[in-house]
This record gives sequence, structure tokens and C-alpha cells, in this order.
Amino acid sequence: MTTSTRPEPGALMAAEIAEQPAVFERVLRDGLADAAEVGRVLRERAPRFVMFAGRGTSDHAALYAKYLVEVRLGLPAGLASPSTLTAYGSRPDLRDVLLVAVSQSGGSPDLVETVSVARACGAHTLAVTNAPESDLARAAELHLDVRAAAESAVAATKSYTAELLTLWLAVQAVLGEDPSVADAVPAAAAALVERGDEVAALAARYRFTDRIVLTGRGYSFPTVLEGALKLMETSYVAAHAFSGADLLHGPLAMIDSDHPVLAVVPPGVGEVAMRPVLERLRERGADVTVLGGPASLELATVGMDLGHTLREDLAPLVDVIPLQQLALRSAVARGFDPDRPRGLSKITETW
Amino acid sequence: MTTSTRPEPGALMAAEIAEQPAVFERVLRDGLADAAEVGRVLRERAPRFVMFAGRGTSDHAALYAKYLVEVRLGLPAGLASPSTLTAYGSRPDLRDVLLVAVSQSGGSPDLVETVSVARACGAHTLAVTNAPESDLARAAELHLDVRAAAESAVAATKSYTAELLTLWLAVQAVLGEDPSVADAVPAAAAALVERGDEVAALAARYRFTDRIVLTGRGYSFPTVLEGALKLMETSYVAAHAFSGADLLHGPLAMIDSDHPVLAVVPPGVGEVAMRPVLERLRERGADVTVLGGPASLELATVGMDLGHTLREDLAPLVDVIPLQQLALRSAVARGFDPDRPRGLSKITETW
Repeated sequence: MTTSTRPEPGALMAAEIAEQPAVFERVLRDGLADAAEVGRVLRERAPRFVMFAGRGTSDHAALYAKYLVEVRLGLPAGLASPSTLTAYGSRPDLRDVLLVAVSQSGGSPDLVETVSVARACGAHTLAVTNAPESDLARAAELHLDVRAAAESAVAATKSYTAELLTLWLAVQAVLGEDPSVADAVPAAAAALVERGDEVAALAARYRFTDRIVLTGRGYSFPTVLEGALKLMETSYVAAHAFSGADLLHGPLAMIDSDHPVLAVVPPGVGEVAMRPVLERLRERGADVTVLGGPASLELATVGMDLGHTLREDLAPLVDVIPLQQLALRSAVARGFDPDRPRGLSKITETW
Repeated sequence: MTTSTRPEPGALMAAEIAEQPAVFERVLRDGLADAAEVGRVLRERAPRFVMFAGRGTSDHAALYAKYLVEVRLGLPAGLASPSTLTAYGSRPDLRDVLLVAVSQSGGSPDLVETVSVARACGAHTLAVTNAPESDLARAAELHLDVRAAAESAVAATKSYTAELLTLWLAVQAVLGEDPSVADAVPAAAAALVERGDEVAALAARYRFTDRIVLTGRGYSFPTVLEGALKLMETSYVAAHAFSGADLLHGPLAMIDSDHPVLAVVPPGVGEVAMRPVLERLRERGADVTVLGGPASLELATVGMDLGHTLREDLAPLVDVIPLQQLALRSAVARGFDPDRPRGLSKITETW
């Protein structure tokens, strides 16, 4: 008798989701010195504006870092449109600008060119990758390794959260603040990883929808963008994420009781800012699943208390885990293998 | 005998779409002096970084202006996350920053607060509105009236294209370049307005889809974002726009031959950059409608030659017109009144 060698659908993605607490521990153990050094250099350079460049999942990590830079460092920040430097050949004056490129593989030619051009235009450059030997890591003046170890599933999970923690540590280091408040992250992540069965019930409820709207605000906006991307990649659902404010400026019209909404509500300021959004959704008769704290669950059709224990700026590192699990379980429930999404490969090269 | 006073569904939106050539003429006649004066002041101030703030349709106008600022002015630019200044209370150092707020109504409290806070933090501020007496116009140091006249349809059309032209004129004025190249815009707009019947055939083909992916790149990216918003607002379709590059980083997986894709291909550099995207979509067996020039139509399932006569940076002012018409005709074909989208009002207030 031989056992089958065909792996279970989603086995890779499931393993990498479960690995996240250990990755956090590794980053907090081995990544502190590098982050401190980058923080020291950046304090000296004292950039006045920060630009981020990333694609797909890493673009969501960049958006998280944009909030950190604006709220915690008090610097204006923007997401670059790489095509202006690459396709359109723009050569802007980037003195006093820090360009941060975020990429799991460090391999996309447009990001490498963006960093090279930005550096030639006077920018300070930092690459944040899971590939210290990559072209992107070499193109930038500074590099931070996110230490997620090899990621095999096409749908990125542990590299995303490792990017978030690495970016958080870099900001903390620029501020000269003690990073030990992040020591609670691995346990908070482990607690959510354990709750996969609750998410399976949610996936079952969503089994037959082919569209879903996600919404978040402030620190939870990148979380819902990333959750939507995972659902698109693995389950082929038209998953569309909006900031709570933008949702009310138009897209609200397409929401009715037959198409689900999933809201992620961070602790703190974001919770207050999301309340009017949840109230408007309720007025529209929407079916709203809320992942958040007790105050927001009152406004939910279905709720999952995330059991927030982390500070609001750290919450995105773990709040995305149920969304990763939702994508995984939705794909499997639909008979797809999330480790082999149709039409995708692990490294996407764009120009 | 009395005639019915019940207006035809979409009559307001149709009238405002048709009004766009006349609005362009008005802006080019009455708006030049103001744009020149703003250009003169901004040259003196010499900002080194430009931030944009807008919501919904006006956020897409802001994204268009971000491309203009990066490509034509050679300045780094970003889209603000208003919640960092409002909800999170960030007080960044904004010296040498120009903050441009774009809003049809000038009435959304979060934008007014964003401008006030930015000004207090040292930014130069410019409001671009269709409401010169609005709070937003008053809060900013500089103001440009987009002169679209009163807009009654909930789905903004003429105010969007008037914002684009006004922002283009401002950039042209900062550069000190002759604006007369834009004199061709009204006729180009009129030629597209006349082609509503071709769009009606497209709306008929899309009658029964409840999701659609739109894609564009560079200067056509804001166009597809705006087209998607119109479809969501009026026809309640899950319309999701991606930059061509981002589409290949994940969302491509949800595209199959049963769900349509609509690509807008600008003339010039954007056309070259979109070609690999169209080729990948073709490999996936996608049903792709292309609005663009002859070279791109070769890769289309269904094509509409936009008859480009304008320079690439001006093309977005008119290329959005078929998408506005598609939203209008799709809504009517589905029995909805696009002048009364469910759940929306003309002015959306967010905090």
C-alpha cells in the first residue's frame, strides 16, 4: 500500500498562515538590530517626505506604513505610481524624499527601476523584502529583510505580516522608542490562528456569493484591501474593499441585502470612525459581518470578536489572519486549490 | 389632457453628460485668468511635494492630477489619507507641501478639516471646487472654480471633467505653457457624446452581468476608476477597477471567460504599457472590451475606437464620456433611474 503524494488543497497556504506567530518571534529576535540601524541612518538623513512603492500584497503593507509615517512620524507620505518613473520617464526632484519599496520577492523589474531612478533623482531609498539577495535589495541604499523564510504558496500570507512588523519596527526605531510593546504580537497572532473553525462557519455562509464588499478605516483599511485580494486570488470572488469614507461616496448604492459586506474595525480611533459607516450600512439593510470589538459587534448581522489586546497601530499585524483563513477556507469549500490559483505564479513581473 | 411630469429615468444625467463640451468651452474661456494667477502664485511658492485630497469622483480627478504633477511638473505627489489628519489627529510638518483638495460641492467636513489642518501645519493650500462660496473654497488659501454650473444628477459627470480640465490648466500655468492645445477638447468631447448608440450596444451586451473588471494604466487609470464608480452608483454592478500592473498581481485569478473586462487604453506611452496586460487577459480567455486606438483593438473581443485626437495628458478629459454613457444606459436597461440611485444623496458628508 502506498499513500497518496497529492497534497491536500491549500496545505501550503494553511501551513504558512499557521507559521505567522513563529515568524513574528523570529523578526522580534533577529530583526531588531537591523531595524535599529536603519532607524539611526534615517534619523540622520531626516527625510521630509516618504513615498512608498509596492504591488499587490506589498502595496497593502506600504499603505499600512503610510499610516504609521503620517500618524506616528508626522511626515507627509504618498504611494508612488511606478509607471510615472518607468513608462512615462519622469525624473522628479526627490531630494529630502525617502522612497520605500516593499516586495516579497524583490524581483519585479518595475520596482527595481523605480528604486534606481529614485536614487538617481536624489531620494534616500529603503527596500523591504523577503529576499536579501534580490535585485531590489541591491538597488536600494538600505535594506530590511522581513525574515519570513521561503514562502511557497502563491497567495502571500506570512510575508505580508512580516513586512508589517518590519515596517513597524523601522518606524519605532526612527522614533527611538522601545519596541518591546510588540512582544505581545506572537501570542495575539497564535490566538487568532487557533480560531480557524469560527472562520470556517463564515466561509460556509459565504459559499454561494460571487461578490463581497469589504470595508475598514484608518489602520484597518490595508487589512481589508489585503483580505479582498486574498479572496480574489484564491476563491475568484469579486471582493472589493473600500475605506469606510469612500464607501459612502457612491459604492454604497450597490449594496443591498443580497450581497454581503465584511467590516474590519480596529480598536481605538478607527472604531469611532467606523461607527457611522456601520450605521449607514444597517440603514441600507445590508448583511454585515463585523470583525472587531464588542461595541462594533452590536451593529453586525454576524460578528467575530477579534479579542483585541494590541495597540491600534499593531492590530493590523494580526487582524488580517481571519481574512487569510477566510480566503483559504472559501477556496477549499468551492473546490479550488488555493495553492494553485489559476492564471498566477509566485513572482509577477511587471514593467 | 395633461402631460406627465414624471421625468424620463436618467434624464438629468444624460443632459449633464451632453453638456460637457459646453462646460469645456466655458472653462477655456472664463477659467484661464484664474488658472494663470494660481500658476503664478504656485511658481513663487515652489512647493516640493504635492498632496491631494478628495473623495469618490473627485478622488479620481485628484489621481489624474497626481500623474500630471509627477510626469509634467516633476514633483513627487501623493494622495492624502484624510483620516490621519482628522480622526488620528496627525499634525505633520507640511512646509514646502502644496495640498490640493478637490470636491464638487466643497461641503464634506473631513475635507474642510483636512485643508484647515494642513494650512495650520504650514502647507500651501488650493481648493478646486464647483462651489466658490463653499466652506472648502473658503478654507483654502487659493481656489479654482471648475465652472461646471449646478450639477443635479447624483452621479457626477460634468463636474468631474471640469475638474480635470481645471487641474490641467493649473499645471499648464505653473509650467508657463500655452493652454491653447486644449482648444481641441470641446470638439473631441462632442464627437464622443454623439456616439451614445454604440455605447448602448455595449450596455445591452452587459445587461446580465453583475460584476465587471475595468483596467487602465497611467493616464487611463483614473478613467477606469471613475467608470467603475459610475457603474456601481447607477447600475449596482460590482465594478472593480485595477491598474494594469496591479491586475496581474493577483486579481487576474478571478477573471475567466464568464465575467467581462473593460480596458481603456490611452494614446501614447500608456498604450505601450497596456499591451502586455491585454496579452495576458487574452491568454486567460477573458472577454475584453477595449476602448482605445486601433493597435489595442486588435487584442479585443469587442472594441470601440475612441478616435484619439488629443495629447495623452488631455485624453482622460474625453475618454471617460463613453463610460459615463455606459453607466447611464446600463442603469436604464436594468430598469433603474440613474438620477435616483438608492442609498445616495448628492452631497455626502464624511468625517
